[in-house]
Amino acid sequence: MKKLINDPRRVVAESIAGLGAAHQDILSVSLEPTYVARRNKTPGKVALISGGGSGHEPLHGGFVGFGMLDAAVPGEVFTSPTPDPIVAATRAVSDGAGVLYIVKNYTGDVLNFETAAELAALDGTDVRTVVVDDDVAVKDSLYTAGRRGVAGTVLVEKIAGAAAERGDALDSVERIARRVAASARSMGVGLVPPIVPHSGVASFELAEDEIEFGIGIHGEPGRQRRRLEPVDALVDAVIAAIDEDAPFVAGSEALLLVNGMGGTPLSELYIAYRRAAEVLGARGVRIVRSLVGNYVTSLEMHGFSITVLVLDDELTTLWDAPVHTAALRWRS
Amino acid sequence: MKKLINDPRRVVAESIAGLGAAHQDILSVSLEPTYVARRNKTPGKVALISGGGSGHEPLHGGFVGFGMLDAAVPGEVFTSPTPDPIVAATRAVSDGAGVLYIVKNYTGDVLNFETAAELAALDGTDVRTVVVDDDVAVKDSLYTAGRRGVAGTVLVEKIAGAAAERGDALDSVERIARRVAASARSMGVGLVPPIVPHSGVASFELAEDEIEFGIGIHGEPGRQRRRLEPVDALVDAVIAAIDEDAPFVAGSEALLLVNGMGGTPLSELYIAYRRAAEVLGARGVRIVRSLVGNYVTSLEMHGFSITVLVLDDELTTLWDAPVHTAALRWRS
Repeated sequence: MKKLINDPRRVVAESIAGLGAAHQDILSVSLEPTYVARRNKTPGKVALISGGGSGHEPLHGGFVGFGMLDAAVPGEVFTSPTPDPIVAATRAVSDGAGVLYIVKNYTGDVLNFETAAELAALDGTDVRTVVVDDDVAVKDSLYTAGRRGVAGTVLVEKIAGAAAERGDALDSVERIARRVAASARSMGVGLVPPIVPHSGVASFELAEDEIEFGIGIHGEPGRQRRRLEPVDALVDAVIAAIDEDAPFVAGSEALLLVNGMGGTPLSELYIAYRRAAEVLGARGVRIVRSLVGNYVTSLEMHGFSITVLVLDDELTTLWDAPVHTAALRWRS
Repeated sequence: MKKLINDPRRVVAESIAGLGAAHQDILSVSLEPTYVARRNKTPGKVALISGGGSGHEPLHGGFVGFGMLDAAVPGEVFTSPTPDPIVAATRAVSDGAGVLYIVKNYTGDVLNFETAAELAALDGTDVRTVVVDDDVAVKDSLYTAGRRGVAGTVLVEKIAGAAAERGDALDSVERIARRVAASARSMGVGLVPPIVPHSGVASFELAEDEIEFGIGIHGEPGRQRRRLEPVDALVDAVIAAIDEDAPFVAGSEALLLVNGMGGTPLSELYIAYRRAAEVLGARGVRIVRSLVGNYVTSLEMHGFSITVLVLDDELTTLWDAPVHTAALRWRS
């Protein structure tokens, strides 16, 4: 195992300490309990909180800041955070306008955020939860009842974050988050597995000419093992799987996210993007917004995922709204 | 070799086609000759052009746009571009205020940009060249007379780009670029080698417990092979090497860049950042600006580099100036 770490037990604490040191203008870090909170939260705004196992950076801590999350709660690598730090983060950023939890659909995350919501309710905090389950690869999975939540999560966080930032009430922010979660569709392919620091061994084994088609972001199995093909064929198969789940509508507008799993060169993501945009274009889908890079990763896994989100004027406006986080930053 | 490609011979063309498709608002792509040019260049501005072998993405095409480069000229992977596309890019973006070439110090790059500058001079274009050689690891190298140009290049491009954008004349833009190039100091460490698509084999071999200390961005040898140590020890050694070359001055202000080589998880870069900031802080250096992520990569190499740039008011102001490229984007 070759990693730039000191001690597998300190990976999460030292990494978020570094995040805090590098982005002091944006966020602050609490180590016990462990959470990342936005500095200078807009007063009276609905608070957005996400979290889950670590190892998917920049998700979630890299998305804390203006126009996106108010707090992120990282668990150990690929391990759900317990309710306590979620409650602590909720208390730290809630100021009366209500709180939205954005939770990827993994059993541990769902349970622990549910418990935290019940505890926060005892404080009188109105907490709503939106579960993201955008991965069309498999119906149930290793850590999941129902679909897994993967790269579409970043779109939910950005768009709901913009709604909260413009002053929407909790009902509206929740509605918009649900709309994005319901519409986003993703699927991924894994070429080389991640290695969890604690275990020191690869999450799965693949032959030199094999890939995992429909891979999860913890290296969980997808639909099948396949031969490694030219990337255009892989992209075509991923797009076909998304199309089968939610058929593309000619004339629609969409956001196309080509996401790297952590160990994939950016040049390869752009090769995949090129093909995905071509295929969607041939189906009459207009790609009006795009995002290419490492956003929802799986440690050093080599692989990619494609997410398609159908847009309308409201979602496009919220996507374009200013954001200032460690990992996403733009102005209108 | 596991790569998300179609054909090793089409990697560069397909990748920049994807870059062009994903960022149509920012840049346009020419395939024959091959270069990336900014859309909507500010008229009458000094033009900034960089380039070099591909495989270092987002360098350079990802830095084309408002406040940074006007064109980027990618060669094949780890291979200098020939003078022809450099001249074509120069003609495409030059409109009379002069052109600055920002060239990483590799023999092929230096020669080919020099030839291009001579050809452009025949058109009557005033071309200046700044060579970046920020890598303190070795004096000469496999492809280099003198030091190699590595991650400091992104700082030269950003800061000189801001000077050009605010309307500085060619003399001033050149002076500022030279100042940054002269002040930036970098060094890197490699854990797992990159694989060049054409050859299909690793650029070097390392044992399971070995690292290359002072690695180049083409996988060239550095100072020595060492045992893999905890990342804090590696960071300390890199910082010590930079300090030895250009001793830190207590009370100075600096920008700290912790750069990933392409295959390194972001969480590991933040662990390294944390230590680097601590060590510099203990030496009395105030880290007032920072950048953490994959900016100057080496395909899927696992490794990192640290760059320290001493700042003054002028450089800080230019660093903070708005930038809108595929890979760096912010407002003041």
